[in-house]
Amino acid sequence: MKALDPGWRARFDHARWFLEPCEEVGSLFGLECLEVLLDEHTPWQHLQVLETRHFGRAMVLDGFLMLTQRDNFIYHEMLVHPALCSHRQPRRVLIVGGGDCGCLREVLRHDTVERVVQVELDERVTRAAERFFPELCEANDDPRAEFVFADGIACVADAAAGTFDVIIVDSTDPIGQAARLFDRTFYRQCHRVLGDAGLLAVQSESPMIHLEVLAGIRGELAAAGFPSLATLQFPQPTYPSGWWSVTLAGGDVLEAEPRPAAGQLDTRFYSGEVHTASRVLPSFVGKALGYSAGSD
Amino acid sequence: MKALDPGWRARFDHARWFLEPCEEVGSLFGLECLEVLLDEHTPWQHLQVLETRHFGRAMVLDGFLMLTQRDNFIYHEMLVHPALCSHRQPRRVLIVGGGDCGCLREVLRHDTVERVVQVELDERVTRAAERFFPELCEANDDPRAEFVFADGIACVADAAAGTFDVIIVDSTDPIGQAARLFDRTFYRQCHRVLGDAGLLAVQSESPMIHLEVLAGIRGELAAAGFPSLATLQFPQPTYPSGWWSVTLAGGDVLEAEPRPAAGQLDTRFYSGEVHTASRVLPSFVGKALGYSAGSD
Repeated sequence: MKALDPGWRARFDHARWFLEPCEEVGSLFGLECLEVLLDEHTPWQHLQVLETRHFGRAMVLDGFLMLTQRDNFIYHEMLVHPALCSHRQPRRVLIVGGGDCGCLREVLRHDTVERVVQVELDERVTRAAERFFPELCEANDDPRAEFVFADGIACVADAAAGTFDVIIVDSTDPIGQAARLFDRTFYRQCHRVLGDAGLLAVQSESPMIHLEVLAGIRGELAAAGFPSLATLQFPQPTYPSGWWSVTLAGGDVLEAEPRPAAGQLDTRFYSGEVHTASRVLPSFVGKALGYSAGSD
Repeated sequence: MKALDPGWRARFDHARWFLEPCEEVGSLFGLECLEVLLDEHTPWQHLQVLETRHFGRAMVLDGFLMLTQRDNFIYHEMLVHPALCSHRQPRRVLIVGGGDCGCLREVLRHDTVERVVQVELDERVTRAAERFFPELCEANDDPRAEFVFADGIACVADAAAGTFDVIIVDSTDPIGQAARLFDRTFYRQCHRVLGDAGLLAVQSESPMIHLEVLAGIRGELAAAGFPSLATLQFPQPTYPSGWWSVTLAGGDVLEAEPRPAAGQLDTRFYSGEVHTASRVLPSFVGKALGYSAGSD
């Protein structure tokens, strides 16, 4: 095949770019880097922290970009606030994964929260966050926060029924270790631990390029006994396709209007209006997920 | 600097990937390609058509990705339908640019439309679309459609006052030739040609990485005499940041609810609910654009 742009390629300095191929859809995302700040093989994964030119620092796990300082606020706010603002009184919160502490910080913005447990498999991720992403860890000293470094699935299985009001699953993609965080066995345990009044929020991949994965997650959640589901969609520029989703599962999620508190949070992306708007799905997504016309 | 991922790089076949750097923010987007179907230097620009592995065919102008068969429906639907569904009775429509005919096809879905003129500078773009993107050109034979290959700015300047109900500016980025499509001189002519009841829709770049450009476009529109503006945001996976915007300008755009016809269009992304939801801007965007809290 003919070279596509020999001019630009000649100037392209490979060593300066982080490149992440999304092989299943033949796309690629890259960020120009200034420095590799951390390059560590933990017991669980390959952990890197990069200094990028225009996106601040970036955390990379096994070659996949997890977050950048420039745009992680969108993902973290949208994974946490719609869930906490849909629950009547979220007091006890469990975060599964989320070792970078970004979700934890958002959870702790809610005055109703009395206790939040973060169960992360890989302690090195949290240590790297403390060192390189201090802004994400600024609430780590809050006495309401509790850190457990262990397998989230085992923790949920061991927890007593009704222990938490909200569970947030801030996982990597459904491959390898993390795949078990996307199936009905795990979701059933979450349902038991939440009770009927609780609410589960899971990151549910891209509505564009992972639509069948998203549909699968919703199928597993329904099979696990959650009677009501709501998928929210939002931009996430540094994730594949630049478009991401979160799915809420619980007793009356579809009916829930965000609590008035939504308007009082110190957020950059989220608001009560954004909450409601992000639940409106484009036609092709709604159709693929079996939403009936007119409903959200 | 340490090589970032020597493993994957070794397997990376440069000649098979279209790579588009977004140099101002140090990011890069790529698509795996199977074949270069067209590589032509027109009087105006470098025009390429690529066969990609998973995004269908792609059109590239001067190294910038204009559209792919997989995701162009989002951009085209969101540039056209919010405008036409906000106008009470859009009968006469002008498209400035848009040589790929994707906007034209969407405009012609509206029964109210009696005449639509597409003014594209580069005839070769339209010829390439006819040959390689026949689905975008499927309405080109509609007797309501009229093709002019000329400078859009001159055409608007020459048009009589009140000639069109809606003008759609489907331009490339505000650099080079296209920069003049983003300033108040051009917008003032649009305002004259539209009259007080008309409506202008312009593609207004990324809310994430071009926020100051978007704010600038709105400033120019206001300076040109448009009393009311509304920016809509939506995902566009193959454009920089994966997130894009359209800005509507007219007499009562901010008040307008989409016409009921919005629900009857044969669309894949757009709907009346999507129209309303896409006008809700995330906090940081609204703040940068001077929206007051509570308004959209």
